[in-house]
Amino acid sequence: MINIGIVGLGTVGTGTTRILLKNRKLLRERTGLDIRLRKIADLDVESDRGIRLTRDLLTEKAEDVIDDPDIDILVELIGGTGVARKIVLNAIKRRKHVVTANKALLATHGIEIFNAATRYGVRIGYEASVAGGIPIIKVVREGLVANRILSIYGIINGTSNYILTKMSEENAEFGDVLQEAQRLGYAEADPTFDIEGVDSAHKLAILASLAYGRQFTVKDVYTEGISSLSPMDIGFARELGCKVKLLAIAKEQGSRVQLRVHPTMIPEDFLISKVDGVFNAVYVKGDAVGETLYYGRGAGDMPTGSAVVSDIVDIATSCEDGTASVRPVVPVLKRAISVMRMEDVLSMYYFRFSVLDKPGVLSKISGILGKYNISIASVIQKGRRHGKAVPLVMLTHHARERDVTRALKSINILPVISRKTIVMRLEGK
Amino acid sequence: MINIGIVGLGTVGTGTTRILLKNRKLLRERTGLDIRLRKIADLDVESDRGIRLTRDLLTEKAEDVIDDPDIDILVELIGGTGVARKIVLNAIKRRKHVVTANKALLATHGIEIFNAATRYGVRIGYEASVAGGIPIIKVVREGLVANRILSIYGIINGTSNYILTKMSEENAEFGDVLQEAQRLGYAEADPTFDIEGVDSAHKLAILASLAYGRQFTVKDVYTEGISSLSPMDIGFARELGCKVKLLAIAKEQGSRVQLRVHPTMIPEDFLISKVDGVFNAVYVKGDAVGETLYYGRGAGDMPTGSAVVSDIVDIATSCEDGTASVRPVVPVLKRAISVMRMEDVLSMYYFRFSVLDKPGVLSKISGILGKYNISIASVIQKGRRHGKAVPLVMLTHHARERDVTRALKSINILPVISRKTIVMRLEGK
Repeated sequence: MINIGIVGLGTVGTGTTRILLKNRKLLRERTGLDIRLRKIADLDVESDRGIRLTRDLLTEKAEDVIDDPDIDILVELIGGTGVARKIVLNAIKRRKHVVTANKALLATHGIEIFNAATRYGVRIGYEASVAGGIPIIKVVREGLVANRILSIYGIINGTSNYILTKMSEENAEFGDVLQEAQRLGYAEADPTFDIEGVDSAHKLAILASLAYGRQFTVKDVYTEGISSLSPMDIGFARELGCKVKLLAIAKEQGSRVQLRVHPTMIPEDFLISKVDGVFNAVYVKGDAVGETLYYGRGAGDMPTGSAVVSDIVDIATSCEDGTASVRPVVPVLKRAISVMRMEDVLSMYYFRFSVLDKPGVLSKISGILGKYNISIASVIQKGRRHGKAVPLVMLTHHARERDVTRALKSINILPVISRKTIVMRLEGK
Repeated sequence: MINIGIVGLGTVGTGTTRILLKNRKLLRERTGLDIRLRKIADLDVESDRGIRLTRDLLTEKAEDVIDDPDIDILVELIGGTGVARKIVLNAIKRRKHVVTANKALLATHGIEIFNAATRYGVRIGYEASVAGGIPIIKVVREGLVANRILSIYGIINGTSNYILTKMSEENAEFGDVLQEAQRLGYAEADPTFDIEGVDSAHKLAILASLAYGRQFTVKDVYTEGISSLSPMDIGFARELGCKVKLLAIAKEQGSRVQLRVHPTMIPEDFLISKVDGVFNAVYVKGDAVGETLYYGRGAGDMPTGSAVVSDIVDIATSCEDGTASVRPVVPVLKRAISVMRMEDVLSMYYFRFSVLDKPGVLSKISGILGKYNISIASVIQKGRRHGKAVPLVMLTHHARERDVTRALKSINILPVISRKTIVMRLEGK
């Protein structure tokens, strides 16, 4: 018998509990294990969450879980990097295995936590920390273990994908869609982490650590959000045969890896560009397997609970056969790979210049771009309003970020430029 | 050190060998294991396969692998159900773990092989047997372990998906596209298993066994191929907003499971309907996780090799920590679940009647359908050729297969029907 203690009975905690109760018989049939929910800690032990729990299962104190010698696995589901960090570290010191859905914690204090786990011989399960119900951690760690990972593209924040989908479908402004998303419960009251790319950056740091064998933190990830996107740019993207997605990108280039989160144009015939609404998807390209994609719900009580329970089963299995403390906690964390500086990244670009409609503007702009080795792939110029500001859209071939920054600096101060140029990166063939 | 012996140096054998040589250092860094290729058996030890192998690594006799006491894992990659069965069973008896890509073998002799493995305490890895490089076995067995599996839809035969994609894109006849596919190497000289759905049925039997905890065989799967499909029906499907795919379907209904492979219309806005060409995808719906989808290459040397090597690593890990003979070989194989007879299946249907263009035909046909509780969702009738045969297309709401069979029997003998009615099943919302 394996005893489970849960700390945090919020959305994911409730889903996890529901699955453990509902599918207990199925889990026993499949695994031969008797997984028992022994204790659940939450500050609120009174609210009705729609599940039947005996009162003695509940406690208000996390310590009741941490200090219970019979509990084998502590499931941390309170989130954040403060209290959660202490609970996880204390549980590890008491030689409990830990399962967590906490991406912020792992992307910030991962090294400390994994080192502690190695020292005390316990395992850390974190399938639920990235892409909710999609078993992407297991896929990258085990399913694709034979592969050098060439690139990862993730749509791993459901809130921003929902907002982008709505902006695209309804030609709506960011602010309006965000408000609607908040009303529907798809965005939090403080949506900063979701819309500014921070949540995606947390998850990318975790995925890239697995893929490249070095513990990255959120600080290693270049991050831009979606709050300054306009429906006009999404419209131009559509005209150019592309969708706009908040992509989390990891790419290996020799001994360096690119880690970046930003709004990205992708050709609409790419499978990942068809991932709409709150759904998540992770595209992984390996040197042997080629292109693969994994799709599902990135949040929610039951999908995330599904991932939590899969970790519980994995660890329970290794408790049962005695290998829990033998197997490595994480893949080797010492590969010599460094993070490429953003200014060194090569990408294709979308520019929307706001130009005064005068003769010679196009030649002036393209002259500056040429000076910085930025070559133009296509141009859209529409609407003639002599002497007034009109949009001028360009797609470039591959150019270096550093050159783009410099070129735009020169262009933005031209008298014919009426507003700061909008820039988006483009991934594709 | 873990010693590997490969039997069969064809496409997948060569890919597996290439990965083990090329990524050996990476595998060691990731797993801490030293996985060594010790022997490769193939009748042809002379051909140049583009990999550098020392001559003493090669042997013409499978026995040299089976009987080598130092080999821990035998990798069976010759295919078929004759010699391969003997090799696998002999290896098991010598207490070697087995990795195989052989879906026909497992879907035919799975019970015998898994029973033998259980008896001798060895493990069977078969990730490569379904959907090539997509780690779908691991996903269903471990990643989604918390879920009751409600349904599985698989595009798991690249050859037929390539043919259907081409037929759709080019409005081409089946026979012409098959010939082209054979010329390009996407279809074998004898394509029967691929185009008649047998290969998909093998793979579905394996997936369903994992999902539902009972060892199904290919005989449990109702199977129809794509060879009688016409571009006309694919065109009508398109008009109705659908794609036609050869789907492998497993659905749980109470204590029964549907297992069927047949051409299927699916709404074009479903993600799986966008899986084109030789690519594979498996859609899995779980009671907790909801909808998920897994996409990648279903065949080829390196993708399938990626799956073979992931099995090798899994088993090597458990050899190293001593659990290889402790862990169950397969999920429990004794759940009380039976296969639903095809005639009991409820589905939506597409009918293409060839009718003589006369008054009263529609009422006659819909009258018979009504008698069998088949209600019509939509009708397409085009092209007026008084007194001549014209197509009359109908979509139905959910109806029972038994009723459909009976209704069509009555309809097909009507004097106004000039050809046997074409039937396709439709899955959707």
